[in-house]
Amino acid sequence: MLNPQYLTSTDAGFWAQLKKLLAWDAQAEDEILNTVRDMLRAVSKSGDAAVLEYTNRFDRRDVQDIAELEIPPARLQQALDNLPAEQRQALELSAQRVRTYHQHQKQESWRYTEADGTVLGQQITPLDKVGLYVPGGKAAYPSSVLMNAIPAKVAGVAEIIMVVPAPDSHLNELVLAAAAIAEVDKVFTIGGAQAVAALAYGTETVPQVDKIVGPGNIFVATAKSMVFGTVGIDMIAGPSEILVICDGKTDPDWIAMDLFSQAEHDELAQSILISPDAAFLEQVKTSMNRLLENMPRAEIIKTAINDRGALIHVKDWDEAAEVCNHIAPEHLELSIADPEALLPKIRHAGAIFMGRYTAEALGDYCAGPNHVLPTSRSARFSSPLGVYDFQKRSSLIYCSADGASELGKTASVLAHGEGLTAHARSAEYRIKE
Amino acid sequence: MLNPQYLTSTDAGFWAQLKKLLAWDAQAEDEILNTVRDMLRAVSKSGDAAVLEYTNRFDRRDVQDIAELEIPPARLQQALDNLPAEQRQALELSAQRVRTYHQHQKQESWRYTEADGTVLGQQITPLDKVGLYVPGGKAAYPSSVLMNAIPAKVAGVAEIIMVVPAPDSHLNELVLAAAAIAEVDKVFTIGGAQAVAALAYGTETVPQVDKIVGPGNIFVATAKSMVFGTVGIDMIAGPSEILVICDGKTDPDWIAMDLFSQAEHDELAQSILISPDAAFLEQVKTSMNRLLENMPRAEIIKTAINDRGALIHVKDWDEAAEVCNHIAPEHLELSIADPEALLPKIRHAGAIFMGRYTAEALGDYCAGPNHVLPTSRSARFSSPLGVYDFQKRSSLIYCSADGASELGKTASVLAHGEGLTAHARSAEYRIKE
Repeated sequence: MLNPQYLTSTDAGFWAQLKKLLAWDAQAEDEILNTVRDMLRAVSKSGDAAVLEYTNRFDRRDVQDIAELEIPPARLQQALDNLPAEQRQALELSAQRVRTYHQHQKQESWRYTEADGTVLGQQITPLDKVGLYVPGGKAAYPSSVLMNAIPAKVAGVAEIIMVVPAPDSHLNELVLAAAAIAEVDKVFTIGGAQAVAALAYGTETVPQVDKIVGPGNIFVATAKSMVFGTVGIDMIAGPSEILVICDGKTDPDWIAMDLFSQAEHDELAQSILISPDAAFLEQVKTSMNRLLENMPRAEIIKTAINDRGALIHVKDWDEAAEVCNHIAPEHLELSIADPEALLPKIRHAGAIFMGRYTAEALGDYCAGPNHVLPTSRSARFSSPLGVYDFQKRSSLIYCSADGASELGKTASVLAHGEGLTAHARSAEYRIKE
Repeated sequence: MLNPQYLTSTDAGFWAQLKKLLAWDAQAEDEILNTVRDMLRAVSKSGDAAVLEYTNRFDRRDVQDIAELEIPPARLQQALDNLPAEQRQALELSAQRVRTYHQHQKQESWRYTEADGTVLGQQITPLDKVGLYVPGGKAAYPSSVLMNAIPAKVAGVAEIIMVVPAPDSHLNELVLAAAAIAEVDKVFTIGGAQAVAALAYGTETVPQVDKIVGPGNIFVATAKSMVFGTVGIDMIAGPSEILVICDGKTDPDWIAMDLFSQAEHDELAQSILISPDAAFLEQVKTSMNRLLENMPRAEIIKTAINDRGALIHVKDWDEAAEVCNHIAPEHLELSIADPEALLPKIRHAGAIFMGRYTAEALGDYCAGPNHVLPTSRSARFSSPLGVYDFQKRSSLIYCSADGASELGKTASVLAHGEGLTAHARSAEYRIKE
C-alpha cells in the first residue's frame, strides 16, 4: 500500500514539515573516510601494484598484470556491432541528439580593445584529459556513458579515460557499446576508490587526468571529494528526485508513472507532486496503488514513496513556485496547460520538463539535455553537467604603454593602501615620466 | 642573499626536479579537521549562541547580543566618505573597470525549436544569496571585496552577505569603503569557521546563503570544503604564484620586481622565471639581490624565493610553453616581443599578462579581470572567479505531442535495456497509437 506524506501549504507547520521531508545527510561515516584515505595513499605511493591488489580483492578477479585491465578499442566496437539493431539505433539517435544540444553550450574566446590600445579578454580552452567513472554491476547505465562523454568531446577534450569495474570479470555490453559511440579513448576495468585514485594521481599505466566525472557508490563519491583540488570533479550526486507540478488535467496514470520513474531508481529517491487540486492528488494516489503491482521494482518504489514521497496541496501557482524554489528539484515537470506562464517564476531546478507530453524519462535518455543534474537542493547554486564543465578560461590582459602608465597610478595607490610595496613598485616602473 | 633554484631543461632530471618544485600539499591536519567539524556542528545546532561564543573567544571581543555584530550600511558609507580622495578615486576606478570587464561574462538564456515543434534550451538565473568571506587583521584586502562582490552583482545576485572578523574590535576602513562601493547588502563582523557555518546553515540572525566565496586561513578553507554540497563554494586557494616567460629584452629590474610582487604575499608563494637567455637569468638574480634591501617585506620575499622560487633555462619557446602548461600557473607574464605568437601554445594559466608593460600587479587591482584565480596547477581544470560562478542553468525541454511520441520510442528501448520499467512505461504513455 502506497501512502506518501500529505502536506497542506496552509498548515501552520507546513514549512517545517517540508524541510524535514527534504533533509538529507550525505556525510560518509568515519570508517568509510578512513578506508578511502588509506586506499588513496596506497595508490598514490604504489601505483599499479596497489590498483591491481584492490581490484583482485574487491572485484573477485585474478589478474597478474595491469595491462590485462585495459579494454582495447576493437572490443568496444565488437560490443557495438553485436547489439540488436533496435538498441544500436536507439543509442546512436540518443548520442546524436545529446551532441546537437550540447553544441549550443560551447563557449568562445572573446576580447575587446580600449581607447588607449589596451586589450582585455578571455581565452577559452578545453581540458586535456578527463576521467569518466562508470559503475559496474546492476547499476550499469549506457545512457550515463553518453551523457558524461559527449559534452567532453564537444568541448574538445583530447583524451577521455573511462574506468568501469568488472566484478567477477562481468562486463556490460551496452556500456561498452556506448563507449564506442561516444568515442571514449581508453577503458580500464577498474572501479571503486582505487580507480578514482589512479585517475587523480596517475600510475605507471593509468594516465593522470585533469577532471573526474561520473556517478558511483559512497566509496567512489568519498574518493572524488578527497581528490578534489588535485583534479576537478563534477558534483557529488545525492539520490534522484522529481517534483511534478500539475493542474489536475493530466491523466493521473501518467503522473503516477512519472513519480514511479524516479522512485524505481533507489529506496532513497524522492518523488513529490504539487497541485492546487486536492481531488487530483487523491486520484494520483489511487493510480499509484493500482499501477504498483505491475512494476518489477515494486519493492524499491514502495519504500521510496512511503519514506520520502509526498503529495502537496497548495492554494495557487505562486505558492507552487515558492515551494518549488525551496525544493530546487533535480527534475521538475510543469504538467499544466500553460507552462510558459509559470516558467519565469521558477528560479531553481536542474531540468524543467514543460507540458503534459514531456515525461521526465525522455530527458534521461534522448531529448538532448544532460541527465547529470544537481540534486539535494544544489540547483540553488549549480547546473546540469555541460560542455562548460570541460572548458576553462584564462583572463587576457595586454596593456599598451599608455594603458600601463595610467593603470599603474591606480594600482600604486591601492597597493600602498594594502601595504604591498613590491606590487606598487612593479606598477610604478611602468608609469611614464 | 637570494638564491632561487636553477633548473635547466636539458638536464636528465629536469621534469622530476620541476615536479618536486611544484609539490604542494593543502591537506589540513586531523586536529584542524576535528576542530572545524565540531564548530560546524555547534553552529548548526545552536545558531547565534554558538557564533557569539566563538566570536568572543577567538576575536577577543565582549559582545552580548549578536545584533551588535551587524554593521549598518551608514557605517560603510561613512568609511567611504572619510577616505582620502586619492584612495577613494582609485577604489572607484578599479570597481568601474572590474564591472565593465565582467559584464562581458554574463550569460544569456537560449532556446531552439525542432521541426516537430519541440523546444530545447537553457534558462540562466542568478543565485539568490551569496556569502562573501573577507579576512580581518593584517591580510585585509579591499581589492578582494571588489573582486568577489562585483561579479555577483553583475550576475544579478539579490543579496550579498559579507562576513569579516574584527579581532579586538578592529575594523579596516578600506575594506568597509570597498563594501560600500561594491554595494554589499549586509555585513557581519564574524570570521573563522563559525562565520562559514553561519552562512552555510543560517542562524536566527545570519541568513542562509547559496554559495560562499572569498579567501581565508586554513580554518576557513577547511570549513568551506566541509560545507560544500550544502552550499556552493569557490576554489580553495593555495599560495599565490607567478610564472614569467621573458625573452631577455625586458629591464631585469622590472622582472625582479614582478617576481617579488608574488613573493611578498607569503613565505609559501612561488615565483618562477623562464628564459632561453641564460645570461638574463643571472641579471635578474643580480637585480633581485640589489632590490631586496629596500623591500619592507624582505624577510617574506627571501623565504619565498629561496624555498620555492626558481630560474629555469629552456632551449626555445615551444619548450617554454610546455613547461608553462605543466605548471598551469595562477599568473603568467609573457614578457616577450610578440606575445600573440606564443599565446596559442598556452593551454593552462589563470591569467595571462601580455607584453613587457603588463605588470601582474595591474591585474591585482584595476585592469578589470578578476584577481581570484586558480592556484596549485588547478588552472588545468578551473577558471578565474567570474559572473558565471554566480549564475546557474536549468535545462528546458518542451516536447510537442509529435516530439514526445517519437522520443518515447527511443526512450522505451533504452529504459528496457537498463531494466527501468517505470521509465519505459512513462515514455510509452506518450507514444501515439
